Formats: sequence, C-alpha cells, structure tokens
Amino acid sequence: MQKKVTPLSEFGEFGLIDHITNDFKKVNKETLYGIGDDAAVLDYVDKKVLITTDLLVEGIHFNLVYTPLKHLGYKAVVVNLSDIVAMNGTPKQITFSLAVSSKFSVEAIEELYEGVNLACKKYNVDLIGGDTSSSLTGLLISVTAIGDANDIVYRNGAKETDLICVSGDLGAAYMGLQLLEREKSVFSETSHVQPDLSGYDYILERQLKPEARIDIIKILKEKEILPTSMIDISDGLSSELLHICKQSKTGCRIYTEKIPIDAETCKMANEFNFSPETAALNGGEDYELLFTIPISDFEKIKSIKGISVIGNITNASEGLNLISPEGSFIQITAQGWNAIK
Amino acid sequence: MQKKVTPLSEFGEFGLIDHITNDFKKVNKETLYGIGDDAAVLDYVDKKVLITTDLLVEGIHFNLVYTPLKHLGYKAVVVNLSDIVAMNGTPKQITFSLAVSSKFSVEAIEELYEGVNLACKKYNVDLIGGDTSSSLTGLLISVTAIGDANDIVYRNGAKETDLICVSGDLGAAYMGLQLLEREKSVFSETSHVQPDLSGYDYILERQLKPEARIDIIKILKEKEILPTSMIDISDGLSSELLHICKQSKTGCRIYTEKIPIDAETCKMANEFNFSPETAALNGGEDYELLFTIPISDFEKIKSIKGISVIGNITNASEGLNLISPEGSFIQITAQGWNAIK
Repeated sequence: MQKKVTPLSEFGEFGLIDHITNDFKKVNKETLYGIGDDAAVLDYVDKKVLITTDLLVEGIHFNLVYTPLKHLGYKAVVVNLSDIVAMNGTPKQITFSLAVSSKFSVEAIEELYEGVNLACKKYNVDLIGGDTSSSLTGLLISVTAIGDANDIVYRNGAKETDLICVSGDLGAAYMGLQLLEREKSVFSETSHVQPDLSGYDYILERQLKPEARIDIIKILKEKEILPTSMIDISDGLSSELLHICKQSKTGCRIYTEKIPIDAETCKMANEFNFSPETAALNGGEDYELLFTIPISDFEKIKSIKGISVIGNITNASEGLNLISPEGSFIQITAQGWNAIK
Repeated sequence: MQKKVTPLSEFGEFGLIDHITNDFKKVNKETLYGIGDDAAVLDYVDKKVLITTDLLVEGIHFNLVYTPLKHLGYKAVVVNLSDIVAMNGTPKQITFSLAVSSKFSVEAIEELYEGVNLACKKYNVDLIGGDTSSSLTGLLISVTAIGDANDIVYRNGAKETDLICVSGDLGAAYMGLQLLEREKSVFSETSHVQPDLSGYDYILERQLKPEARIDIIKILKEKEILPTSMIDISDGLSSELLHICKQSKTGCRIYTEKIPIDAETCKMANEFNFSPETAALNGGEDYELLFTIPISDFEKIKSIKGISVIGNITNASEGLNLISPEGSFIQITAQGWNAIK
C-alpha cells in the first residue's frame, strides 16, 4: 500500500501544526498557560528556573536518509531535556520550533510531532509554544527546554580527590552513526542492496533514540549523593572532562579500562579498525551524565547499578590525563566528535 | 577603504560567538547564571514567568539585500520582546540561536551581535544562552524571550462595550517593505542606479528597526488602566482583531477614520496606488499594541498621547465590522500580510 502524501500547502499557514499541538496534554502544575497567546505563562514558586536551547539542522545534525522523522522529533526534545537534567534539574516544559520546506508532506510533519509527543509523555513535559516557518531548503528544529531544580549542580564545583563518574556506557551512539553512514554509502552506490543493520540494535538505538538520564538524577537523590559538578556527554568524554576541569580549575586522571563500553560498540569499532576508547572519548551524542562526587560517597555510589567510577579529580597543575592499563599517561585533548576522521 | 572580511572558519567551532557573547553585561537580578553551563539559571520568586519564541529565516522573513545585519539582530530580539510586552509583562532574558552558512564572515556575525547587544541594552534584557550551528544555506535565527508579570493580560478577556485601542500608527512597516522591494527590483534591473530612499526615513525605520512598546505598558500602569485583553500587531490589525474576538468570544466595530496612519505611510501608499487603510489592516510588522479597556477608563485613556481609540467590542453575533466614514459596514477578514497582492 502506498503511503498517503498530502502537501503542506493544503493546510495553509501551518493550521496542521496548531491542530497537532492542541492535542498535547498538559501535565505540570507549573504550566499555567501553554500555546495560544503571545507567550506561555509558567509558575515557578520558590524554585530556580533552568533554560536551555538547541538547534538541529538538516545536513549538519541529522540526515533524513536514515533518520526516521519520529525518532528525530523524539531526539530533538531529549537532547534538550538532557541539558536540564545535567544541572540536576527536572524538565517541565519545551517550546518546539520548526522551519520546513515544501518538500515535506503533512504526514511527515505528523510523524515528527509523534516523536515530540512521545518524548513529552515519557518525560512528563508540556509543549508550551513554538514557531513554525517556511524554509527555502531542508528542515531546521529549534527547541528550548525549561525546568526547575532545588540543588543545582554546575560544571564548576569539582574538587581535588573527587571521584569522576559516568552513567551507562559510551561510544555507542558514535558507532551507530558510523554504521548508518556506511550503509548509506553502500546503498547510494548499489541501490538494489538493502542496508544490513542486523545485530546492531543497541548502537542504532543509541544513535537514533537517545534518552535523558533523569533516572540517574533520581537515584542519586535517593542515595543522598549530591554531585559536586555535572555535565551531559553530548560531544564525547574528552570534551566534557575539559569543560569540568577548566571551569572547576582542576586536573583529572581517567583510567582507560574503567571507561564503560558496550560489547556491541567494541564489535562495531573492531569492524571499522577503530579503537573503542576513541569512540568513547571523542564520539558524541551518548547523552550520558559525567559527574564528580566527594570521595566519601564511594560506598554509596558503588551500590548503584549502571554508574562507573572512571577516575578522580587532581590538582590543576597535573593536567588532564588518561592512564593506560600499563600505567602510561596520555594527555587528554578535546577533538570533538565532528573532527574524528 | 575596503571592509575587512575574515572567514568564519578561522575561529573554529564558533569561538568568536563565545567571545562576543561573553562581552554582554548582566543587568537583571532574576538572571542567576547565564551562558557557560548546560542551562541558564533564573530566579523568579513570586512572579509568573512568560516565555515566547520566534524563528527568523533568510529569504522568508528577511532579505539581506536590504537588511543591515545590525538591524536584523536588533529586530530579531525586539519582535520577541514585543510578545512578552503584549502579555503586560517585562522582558528580562533572551536566548539567541544562529544557524549560519560559511558565506558569512566574522565581521558579519559581529555586526549581527552588535544589534542584539543594542536591543539588550535598550530593553534591559540579559542574553543567557543560545546555540550556534553551521547551515548548508543562508541564515536562520531563533530567539526565545523570558520575562515576568504581575497582572498578565491574555487575548481572551475582552468584554462587550470595551473600547478598542492601538498604540502608535499602523501600516508604516509594510509600506517601508514595499519601498525596499521596489528599489531592490530597480537596482537588480539597472545596477548603476542607486536606490532612492530619501524622504522615507520613518517608514524605513519602522520596517528595519521596530520597537517593543514597553513604554505603553508602563504608562498604562501609571494611569491605573489594566487592559482586559492585549496582543501585539505583528500580522496586521485585522488578523489581531480576529484573535482577540475569537478568544474573547465577542464581535467588534472598528471605525476606518480612527485607525492611526502616519502621513508618510499615506504618501507611500498613494505612490503605489494602494489604500493606506489596507496597509494598516493587513500589513504586518508594526509591533504596536492592540488592547481593550473598560469604557469607564475612557477619560484616562484620552489623556495618553500616542494611543488611539479605534472602536469597541460588541456581542459575538454582530461579527467583526469595519465602519466607513459614510457609515457602511464591511466584514473584517484576516488576509495576513503575506497574502496581500
């Protein structure tokens, strides 16, 4: 059966998006008034308000050849929620703006908003506004997330001897991207060959459908661990360590063998003749949390599943070091995942 | 002397923008922490928080042939502040995001941010964040404005017999755009002819450098007038009247001869064989305020310079009517300024 394709122009001035967004249910008491006036109205009594914003640009941040629109909508929301979580906050609202060319159909935009709605429901977040515009070329998404926090954790609070922790595992999203790019190339050269993505569900999901680790924030609160610094890993471990150490005016030691890497990530990296540690250090988009805790919390953190202690904070004069299993020191520099060749 | 042109690539990953934005001074106590972490931190104790967001897309919302980048930066901020003001609020912060292609130089981006900075200073607003990205084509700007309010005014509070008021004058921004478009056409056909924009300073300024009417909000507060409904005029008077009447479940009567139109707007409209009233009703981007007040406030409003009473709210059953000097009734429909031919 052929998919239905309705041109966007049929709805005039994005009446469709008004319709779609009106279906979103409001869940937070902090949302007094959402879409429908000049501005949304929020009520944050006695709590600090957190605000963050991100752009996602077609051809730069995503490739529609292998990114389903529903996943894209989901991811666009999640990467912003992750920034709120990385302040030890709880996301409450988002605005979702869209510049879209006429090549997109009504059904495509509906699919995109399905993903937005799914993320809003999963994370108990209200869609409170946005803007929609034509675009002369592809698709651009701009999301702003708003949340609150009692105990805000900045990047600048790490202290000497603090333990450095990461949630989940690293490098998977990057290896998922490599796999998608490889299959895209194969497909564009020999279009009768179907992409072979079997056996790599985990790394593909990490790339296409990341999650914001609000579960980690909750469990740390339960265990009464307040991180001294925190950041989400969007650009690779190296880059985020540099941010924390620079802003906290410290150095650090990271032990290579302590960096959590999934077996599937290793397998894919091997296929590409690529070091899994490099994917973890310089690959991006894992959206795990990197945080530091006082060494006195070691027993507590040990008891939490899915958190790895990967090293410790040192005096700034020592610099940032990666220590191999053989004990050799390598200086950590930020390459940024866009720069990996 | 030739203008200096430095390619953006020289600065790598938008180090320049970090540098530029660090120069912005924080002025509001509600801004606890701005740029530099995963999210900004705001403190809005005992006040409602207002949030609004707008996209500005090259080729759709602005044409760089005749829009100086400094003006564009200024306008991108102001149109968002105007939405906060239209809720009877005070803007306090903005985020400013940018997707920009490599055709832009460092100097061009500096010029854009000069306009942003100018608007921030003029309106006492803090730049607290944003995102910067490459773009495969032109320039896209996404701004989110945050503010607060004690007495929020929505679009839905207009009551029968309320007076309908507008600030300033209408149609000028639209006629300014027509002039710029005409001179652009002339220039592209015969490039040795310089554009002739003399004698039209006012309508050009209205198009290129609009203001948010926070002065009106302040004076209404001083005079103890609380509007029953309010909206900013971004899409033309007709469209905004429709929003207010629809959301308030009312009708209205507007008197053509009461609509405030500047002499320069009339002159330009005449040159184009265009009715000035049509520019006011359907032309956009004036960013004046349209609001309703109880009829008992008539004496107070009369005393304020720069506010015109243009009609009154009626029962919904009467519909929305424009009354000519001869007394004939015309139904008001929203054409949207993009649709004017």
